[in-house]
Amino acid sequence: MRIGELSRRTGVPVPTIKYYVREGLLPAGELTSPNQASYGVAHERRLRLIRALLDVGGLSVAAIREVLSAVDAPGESVHKVLGAAADRMVPGYGPGGTGADESEGEPDAELEAAREDVRELIARRGWDVDDRCPAAEALAGAVAALDRVGQSGYAEVLDAFAEAAEKVAQADIAYVKRRVALDDLVESVVIGTVVGDAMFAALRRLAHVDASAREFAHIRTHD
Amino acid sequence: MRIGELSRRTGVPVPTIKYYVREGLLPAGELTSPNQASYGVAHERRLRLIRALLDVGGLSVAAIREVLSAVDAPGESVHKVLGAAADRMVPGYGPGGTGADESEGEPDAELEAAREDVRELIARRGWDVDDRCPAAEALAGAVAALDRVGQSGYAEVLDAFAEAAEKVAQADIAYVKRRVALDDLVESVVIGTVVGDAMFAALRRLAHVDASAREFAHIRTHD
Repeated sequence: MRIGELSRRTGVPVPTIKYYVREGLLPAGELTSPNQASYGVAHERRLRLIRALLDVGGLSVAAIREVLSAVDAPGESVHKVLGAAADRMVPGYGPGGTGADESEGEPDAELEAAREDVRELIARRGWDVDDRCPAAEALAGAVAALDRVGQSGYAEVLDAFAEAAEKVAQADIAYVKRRVALDDLVESVVIGTVVGDAMFAALRRLAHVDASAREFAHIRTHD
Repeated sequence: MRIGELSRRTGVPVPTIKYYVREGLLPAGELTSPNQASYGVAHERRLRLIRALLDVGGLSVAAIREVLSAVDAPGESVHKVLGAAADRMVPGYGPGGTGADESEGEPDAELEAAREDVRELIARRGWDVDDRCPAAEALAGAVAALDRVGQSGYAEVLDAFAEAAEKVAQADIAYVKRRVALDDLVESVVIGTVVGDAMFAALRRLAHVDASAREFAHIRTHD
């Protein structure tokens, strides 16, 4: 198909498609004449993946480029590719993220204590994960941030959160095993990971509102 | 205390503190002479709250201003203040968010179907929430995005996610009831909501890696 039809089918404007090609997110179309290129279903699928990561996941163009390079890595085990993609989809991690920021060069006592909490949690859950991976670092950054704002007690909820995260991950994996062909596996997991975060955050808000109506409706603030 | 001490105690540079005052996030200090202002513990606490929302929550300055105006609303019920703050902390909602974007003016069939899914989910869970609130809209936006990328089956996991979100919300509320004085209630919930999202996303990644090691270690991709 021509770029105009690709645009119509995906709802992505032609200049935006050209921008993604220039940025290396989308492979160029196959030239059919000096100034005409042809695009296929692989382009359409890739374009939808890019939009999901951008719109729902809120990932930057640079982060998307890294996720796609993991998706496209040839001949790796699925587990390794998923791990590489997951590392790049950790919110707040990487340049600009400050969850676990040591850029000021000083040893950070809160962060070191939080890392120890995370190591203990991983051991307690029996998780087979590297306790220095980006997700573990992001978790330590969040725990340290709580400590800095005087809410260190909130780390009490870590085990309840971890148990819920295990349930969610089981549902994720069960869906993938039941519904997804191997060809689509990595793309599906990438989309499910990023969109799933947004889904869970929204559901947690709704569950808060429901619980808060029962607990706090009659208590007033600033009286 | 002077602005220099406030900076040392919070780790926020003096020009950044002045920027927050100009942007209306932080009240100005009390003038003790024509060019000297004095800051108190309320400033220190507010500054830590701003940093947590920025660094861990990734909120924009405009979003933080809205959250703080809900926190400072006088004489409201705690439930109402929490609801107002929660509405402003929904990821992807508001200007720039595209989770549920209808700006192109066309009726959006995927979004309408997703809203119906969300209404049914809320009824099924028996949640006492408005099905047009920002969190419900964000959830519908995420479900519609899955549909657009051909992953509509992933909505099967909604109930498992909702059950996990209820467990997490129960842990959140139990912590707040046990540990937090009424004075700190709204600030604690604001921090816990935003930091909790980052914590849960990181824990879900770790649980994915653990589950994926068992399920997918021996399956190769792109062979």
